[in-house]
Amino acid sequence: MPAIWSPSLSHGAQQITSSAIRDLLEITQQPGTISFAGGLPAPECFPTEELTAATERALVETPLAALQYGPTEGFRPLREFLVRHMARLDINVPLEQLLITSGSQQALDLLGKLFIDDGAPIAVEETTYLGALQAWRPYQPRFLTLPLDEDGLDVNALARMLEGGAKPRFLYLVSCFQNPTGVTLAPARREALVALASRHGLAIVEDDPYGELSYDGPRTAPLAALDIAMHGELRHVVYLSTFSKLLAPGLRVGWVAAPAEVVGKLVQAKQGMDLHTGSLAQATAYYASCDGLLDRHTPHILAIYRARRDAMLAALERHMPPGVRWTKPGGGMFIWLTLPEQLNAAQLLRAALERQVAFVPGESFFPNGGGHNTMRLNFSHAAPAQIQEGIARLASAIREMIGKT
Amino acid sequence: MPAIWSPSLSHGAQQITSSAIRDLLEITQQPGTISFAGGLPAPECFPTEELTAATERALVETPLAALQYGPTEGFRPLREFLVRHMARLDINVPLEQLLITSGSQQALDLLGKLFIDDGAPIAVEETTYLGALQAWRPYQPRFLTLPLDEDGLDVNALARMLEGGAKPRFLYLVSCFQNPTGVTLAPARREALVALASRHGLAIVEDDPYGELSYDGPRTAPLAALDIAMHGELRHVVYLSTFSKLLAPGLRVGWVAAPAEVVGKLVQAKQGMDLHTGSLAQATAYYASCDGLLDRHTPHILAIYRARRDAMLAALERHMPPGVRWTKPGGGMFIWLTLPEQLNAAQLLRAALERQVAFVPGESFFPNGGGHNTMRLNFSHAAPAQIQEGIARLASAIREMIGKT
Repeated sequence: MPAIWSPSLSHGAQQITSSAIRDLLEITQQPGTISFAGGLPAPECFPTEELTAATERALVETPLAALQYGPTEGFRPLREFLVRHMARLDINVPLEQLLITSGSQQALDLLGKLFIDDGAPIAVEETTYLGALQAWRPYQPRFLTLPLDEDGLDVNALARMLEGGAKPRFLYLVSCFQNPTGVTLAPARREALVALASRHGLAIVEDDPYGELSYDGPRTAPLAALDIAMHGELRHVVYLSTFSKLLAPGLRVGWVAAPAEVVGKLVQAKQGMDLHTGSLAQATAYYASCDGLLDRHTPHILAIYRARRDAMLAALERHMPPGVRWTKPGGGMFIWLTLPEQLNAAQLLRAALERQVAFVPGESFFPNGGGHNTMRLNFSHAAPAQIQEGIARLASAIREMIGKT
Repeated sequence: MPAIWSPSLSHGAQQITSSAIRDLLEITQQPGTISFAGGLPAPECFPTEELTAATERALVETPLAALQYGPTEGFRPLREFLVRHMARLDINVPLEQLLITSGSQQALDLLGKLFIDDGAPIAVEETTYLGALQAWRPYQPRFLTLPLDEDGLDVNALARMLEGGAKPRFLYLVSCFQNPTGVTLAPARREALVALASRHGLAIVEDDPYGELSYDGPRTAPLAALDIAMHGELRHVVYLSTFSKLLAPGLRVGWVAAPAEVVGKLVQAKQGMDLHTGSLAQATAYYASCDGLLDRHTPHILAIYRARRDAMLAALERHMPPGVRWTKPGGGMFIWLTLPEQLNAAQLLRAALERQVAFVPGESFFPNGGGHNTMRLNFSHAAPAQIQEGIARLASAIREMIGKT
């Protein structure tokens, strides 16, 4: 029985592997397991009634826009709404520079298709969003990694890299409440980064799905806003955001604001990828948002997630043995935990799953390997009592493993 | 003002151009213009009330499945429905071999990503679906074209190509009521093609969005069904279909049935592309279909489109001057028209647009150029009276152009 299809995989496809998280999710869905593994919004945060009303409005008021083929750029009223929404972040772009995508994930694939060739250097944070690595590996880039700390990307290290002659096609970063570490690029570093980009002609992909999930005060200004402030228009930054965290990820509606010279290519490439993002989902996002739902609903989400973040930080403080370190994020969904050097998080995971608690070992987030003693903890999905119990279980597994070494 | 982003386009991206149809659509949306250019379903055919009820059921009965992140393979009840739906076409596949995609267009992009390398030979019909060419050009294949006639692909020509040593990664064809020509691969040729595939280890991508739109009798058995009949399982054929023609294209929900060795790679690649197809759209398609809507609704669509096809064929017969030929499709949405050799369809389009009638010049559908005197006419979107008027206008433009040559 010859395998007709498998021998002819493209070189790019040979780079594709399943996400460690995705494989994990199956295990963690067993009843009784407390999972800090996924990156799921809490279902209590979905504005289900408002979304139901929005689908009705979409299908009654604009049935054609909700059901027929639509423009690749996206549903125009939604794009117009997003132009206004982004202006509040001082990201002032004309409608023509704003494109709807099938979640931010598609924007990453689009950017890979447009800008990554075999061996092309792409600068990324040393730990970065796994989905970006997955989107780009088929295009076979070479990842140049940059350190990050509690204040986000080490911009001085980037300056040295660029001054040393590196020519990354672009720099990718999650600028607020990063996935996986939870850290945020500090305002002074943002200024320095945009100035550096200007000096070196550096292109930047700013992924900002978590920016609105700011629990300790107003969010930090996006790089895109600084780029526009400095250059009068979006010149260096392609800005990605999404409805996934504020409405519902199942809509798969994200958006991109891009420099004028990029947006036409994004639209052309997207056309060949899925023609356009689902019309019903776009119309639903529009009718749900157009009368101010995000303003009314976001504080509700923030209150829930803030309590969960606080519960996890308190539980870590209470239960973790000495030698374990973790980040203290001001927002987002994730805490990054570093075990003592001699511990291995993948081994720990097996012991943790026996105790019915799950996390993601950190290695997957390192583009070029490393981080055997790190892990990502999600705090948005489990309720506070579960978080306390789960962290206690995890700490007990860690203690036992330390005892054995 | 340096252009930061544009100089670094990938080699693949340099192959991306906008669709001729897409550019045309803007012109043809002017009021008064009768358009045979798009490939749009008639909005009268959308089961809007049933879809509205389905979104409500989705959001009330399974809000999490409609709003949360979901599995990359798709919403399980929808996949189970499609397993039953396909079994009626004798395409018997286990659930594990069925994957939901963001329209069939995404399946084409997925297949390109998995199986096309720079310079890889791909066998296609001499005129083929423009969206497949758009999806694949960024992966830089070499298109090997095969003739087709009123009975579809010339399978003998394919046999000669394979016997001559050509090793296409796969053969792509729209097997029923082809886009752009409207022709259908005849049953005897289907048998011969599957036998040939078996002999040569040929992989086949069968794109079947129009198969159910059969106006003159039962549809022809898909190649996938013959593959299974011959081999006991799907071995040679990756089968693509969609809800776009039977429910609504704006849902962007399609599906793929693939040999076991392919489906895992499809899922992995899709994960990096958009994580999963929109949950609300999938749940809507499921709740709309699960109680037999397709069976009740399809005859209604067939009656409308059959009348439009008949109206266009009658109008062509009545108005076209000698020397103009066209196909007589048994289904689908398109008629293919061939002008006298000395006429140029792109030039004709300008004259036609002055008369407020639009079509797509055929050249775009030829992967390697040619077909200057051909055009595609869509008959599903305009009402019969418009079709008669539009064909009369078109014939008058053709007559005038013949007079000038």
